[in-house]
Amino acid sequence: MIEQATALFRVSTRGQGFTDISDKVTAWVHDVGAREGLLTLHVKHTSCSLTIQENADPDVRHDLLIALDGLAPRGADYRHSIEGPDDMPAHIRTMLTATSLSIPVIDGAVQLGTWQGLYLIEHRDAPHERAIAAHLSFEG
Amino acid sequence: MIEQATALFRVSTRGQGFTDISDKVTAWVHDVGAREGLLTLHVKHTSCSLTIQENADPDVRHDLLIALDGLAPRGADYRHSIEGPDDMPAHIRTMLTATSLSIPVIDGAVQLGTWQGLYLIEHRDAPHERAIAAHLSFEG
Amino acid sequence: MIEQATALFRVSTRGQGFTDISDKVTAWVHDVGAREGLLTLHVKHTSCSLTIQENADPDVRHDLLIALDGLAPRGADYRHSIEGPDDMPAHIRTMLTATSLSIPVIDGAVQLGTWQGLYLIEHRDAPHERAIAAHLSFEG
Repeated sequence: MIEQATALFRVSTRGQGFTDISDKVTAWVHDVGAREGLLTLHVKHTSCSLTIQENADPDVRHDLLIALDGLAPRGADYRHSIEGPDDMPAHIRTMLTATSLSIPVIDGAVQLGTWQGLYLIEHRDAPHERAIAAHLSFEG
Repeated sequence: MIEQATALFRVSTRGQGFTDISDKVTAWVHDVGAREGLLTLHVKHTSCSLTIQENADPDVRHDLLIALDGLAPRGADYRHSIEGPDDMPAHIRTMLTATSLSIPVIDGAVQLGTWQGLYLIEHRDAPHERAIAAHLSFEG
Repeated sequence: MIEQATALFRVSTRGQGFTDISDKVTAWVHDVGAREGLLTLHVKHTSCSLTIQENADPDVRHDLLIALDGLAPRGADYRHSIEGPDDMPAHIRTMLTATSLSIPVIDGAVQLGTWQGLYLIEHRDAPHERAIAAHLSFEG
């Protein structure tokens, strides 16, 4: 019989950059006792986002941030500027990455690949408290 | 006991731009009677897409469209041109944004943040009738 | 009563390009016997990704690759270069496209639109064996 569980994760960020949430999320799936199921994460903001990326070489995250800076530069002529020069680029970067992610759970393991980490990407300059809604449908 | 419901939403667009589908979607979740569950939306096209973005300042959507125009410009030298100069950019913009989204439902509320709206982005110049397939797994 | 099924799909790629996985995936959904439900795919890598794109004119995929080349060029000054000049662009292209996708199943049919195909995009130069974790919650 399939059951479900939900949770709200809080993530404190320190300005623009990646926060690894893999351990927090996989610990929850383990605590719930899921053997097989589906995990879904949804970030409740429009100026930070989710991604699954390489967790080995930190230079990868550095280069990803540089890439996002180039794709949604701060200096562009945005109409929406009242929340600061980092806000509109943050919305664009959110649109280009992910707001929700879904990952199967098989044999008790969230099906992340060997080099995959789950990250929240903060796109604003200032530290923020961010919320991620999580859902798990599972059999134990 | 977990149940499921499905629906097909029709969205009429008026050419390139954002259509807010939040009310339509959350009304359906309410009518189905979901107290806890998972909502999934999938747009059945390759020249329009889905995104979750700020619903407060309309200038944000204006700037997002300008950004997409820059990332996938009309004037580029595309091989696929038989459907018009707006078609290939529309495919690229769809690839860079989202075709499917999943959002948990907790305590009867679709877990959109305070400033999050659900949008269909029309990437073609002409008005279109678009279809979104929706799925809800839930307990009432 | 809702049931679930999981699978691990193997996809052999021949270097940068699109591999159509629509038939493989929809055949599995049919074999499982799903009449109504939710299909989720998650690719277990950070240098290839998933997308849903036009399956009619192959020129579309050609132009999509050119677009990704432009958005995440090989020649940029990346810190992460030890895995070759195609690796960091591959991570960026993965971040800009999709790692997971969810599609409702209604009346026995995965709700892909008429022109929608499910693709794995290989972003590396060399052929790779790729793994996709799949989950299906369904009623038969």
